[in-house]
Amino acid sequence: MRDERGALRPETNEASGTSAVRSSNDAFLRALFREETAHTPIWLMRQAGRYLPEYRALRERVGSFARLYKNPALACEVALMPLARFPLDAAIVFSDILTIPDAMGLGLSFVENEGPKFERPLRDERAIRKLFVPDPFDRLRYLPDAVSVTRHALAGSVPLIGFSGSPFTLACYMVEGGVSKDYRFVKTMLYDRPDLMHRILDVAADAALVCLNAQIESGAQAVMVFDSCGGVLSTAAFREFSLPYTRRILEGLIAEKDGTRIPSIVFTKGGGAWLESIAATGCASLALDWMTELGEARRRVGARVSLQGNLDPQVLFAAPERIAAEAEKVIDAYGADATGLVFNLGHGVSQFTPPEHVGALVEAVHRYSRKLKSTKKSRLRR
Amino acid sequence: MRDERGALRPETNEASGTSAVRSSNDAFLRALFREETAHTPIWLMRQAGRYLPEYRALRERVGSFARLYKNPALACEVALMPLARFPLDAAIVFSDILTIPDAMGLGLSFVENEGPKFERPLRDERAIRKLFVPDPFDRLRYLPDAVSVTRHALAGSVPLIGFSGSPFTLACYMVEGGVSKDYRFVKTMLYDRPDLMHRILDVAADAALVCLNAQIESGAQAVMVFDSCGGVLSTAAFREFSLPYTRRILEGLIAEKDGTRIPSIVFTKGGGAWLESIAATGCASLALDWMTELGEARRRVGARVSLQGNLDPQVLFAAPERIAAEAEKVIDAYGADATGLVFNLGHGVSQFTPPEHVGALVEAVHRYSRKLKSTKKSRLRR
Repeated sequence: MRDERGALRPETNEASGTSAVRSSNDAFLRALFREETAHTPIWLMRQAGRYLPEYRALRERVGSFARLYKNPALACEVALMPLARFPLDAAIVFSDILTIPDAMGLGLSFVENEGPKFERPLRDERAIRKLFVPDPFDRLRYLPDAVSVTRHALAGSVPLIGFSGSPFTLACYMVEGGVSKDYRFVKTMLYDRPDLMHRILDVAADAALVCLNAQIESGAQAVMVFDSCGGVLSTAAFREFSLPYTRRILEGLIAEKDGTRIPSIVFTKGGGAWLESIAATGCASLALDWMTELGEARRRVGARVSLQGNLDPQVLFAAPERIAAEAEKVIDAYGADATGLVFNLGHGVSQFTPPEHVGALVEAVHRYSRKLKSTKKSRLRR
Repeated sequence: MRDERGALRPETNEASGTSAVRSSNDAFLRALFREETAHTPIWLMRQAGRYLPEYRALRERVGSFARLYKNPALACEVALMPLARFPLDAAIVFSDILTIPDAMGLGLSFVENEGPKFERPLRDERAIRKLFVPDPFDRLRYLPDAVSVTRHALAGSVPLIGFSGSPFTLACYMVEGGVSKDYRFVKTMLYDRPDLMHRILDVAADAALVCLNAQIESGAQAVMVFDSCGGVLSTAAFREFSLPYTRRILEGLIAEKDGTRIPSIVFTKGGGAWLESIAATGCASLALDWMTELGEARRRVGARVSLQGNLDPQVLFAAPERIAAEAEKVIDAYGADATGLVFNLGHGVSQFTPPEHVGALVEAVHRYSRKLKSTKKSRLRR
């Protein structure tokens, strides 16, 4: 089904439950809104990725990462891979945060073992003045299309998450031209020419917003903003160059679709010091890195937002019984009732992770949280 | 002058003021003990390094970084380079935190643009069981000798800082075998075989302690422990694998030399969440990265320790007037009286920094803090 712009639209057949109603497993959405759930829902950042042999095989067959995410059918196939293995409570559209700058004409490529590279990093004033907001249904159409196809394929089993990089994180990659160790170019601009940095952030914020709204229109049931680079800023610089632009996105998001609220999640890697300010942006949920103590985070902001996180992804290299023990510690740190907790890692799954260890984690989180929640219930009954 | 072990000892001629008395510029030591000073003292992590053309020339002539720090006369020459250019308030011995694991037999080398590498990273139980504490006056003699020669050459102008990596940071390099992006091997060991990790930390703590005490015996007037990797740990892991070992070092340090107290400084990059616990280890001062807001840090721990920091090193790429403005913001964030503040960067000087920008920073910190402190004084007089 395609709309007037030709973009694929999810089926709205109510009987199939794929659109107007919540998914059959709605623990993830309920937890985001801090409602009761029978177990703690779990999904993992980068759950569809290189640690899965079936992903590596498909990528090799297709030839590149870009060919996967630019083809909605293949992107859907990849997004569903981890769900075929593990009883995860949410899916996330398979894409990349750098699709936005790519659609702005910066020329994205992925070099094996070096990460993303932009052919034309943004360093001179003329290029910055010419920056524009790409139409998500034109140059980025593969993204809302991937959302639409994936949502349809999920057939209401679990909710689908859409996402974008935060404006500051997009700006980091755009100015640095790729992964950076020291953020030298972006920080030089930020301190030396704050006017240019604000111009980039301005366009990046509008681009991220229309891109997220396009995903919601195409069937995303929750959206996440990744401020993966926010934590490299001083507090003052974070308040000037990252936070207001994330807030602007959250204020412009489609709040409700087909009668259902669309929750938003903000992840600021290294942002533990700023939880209060981030929680005040209007997001439904904060995703936390593993350096932030979950119990402390809950005391600080848990009355306002749900929390998502925050196991150190490297725990997944340990033996399954150690993984279970560490997962239980995370749940215990949050607090035994676990209402308002979505279990996740504090960062993406490492490519070297044994897939069966992911399975052990999902099983441990479900088992332990069911036990806790049923104990609590039977206690209440007495 | 050599002691019974043959190590060079600093001259103790009291007239020269090099040992028994404080340096002629003692603002740095006074600020560490939260005593009044006429200006805010400043020194910079990695102040003697690759951003200085005279350093690059010497290193090229000598052939390698290791040949510089292993030769006390050359190490002294390098340590004094930034002081010849800028009126810095402290010197730091020119060395590397990885000299300790090198002396343990791990085989250190420095590969251009790749950083340090160990030939024999510590990954198997047998090698871990065989780990030993190297004698700092034998295998590491070049380090106390460099301290001694540098202290003598400083001739009481400014105090000299000795240093060591924290046990956890040493363990990271020892297990990873070099710089790591994901700390995969050390974290696998930490979660899977905590007993082996504790064994490494145990030896590393003893080694760091004897190495710091050797530097104090040889003339270091303050010591600093660099926990550069501590911030990659979860709070629980930090409390188990980093903090207690740093505390053990601080408890074993020589507290007083020639009637003068020896202050200790702890730097935990990414440790903003744990300031209270780190301040409770018994250190005189906390060095802060630039992500920690200085005013908030002072409110949290400023009654117990002095603070050192915390300008983002990348500010030094901006124009001198911007550098001055950002430096003033750091001092203002700490609080106008600035008692108990040692100005520094939140991390080391980047190799790409224009040297004249460092000069602009030092000048700005001295000028602005003198103005603040004299205003305060004249206010008190009225």
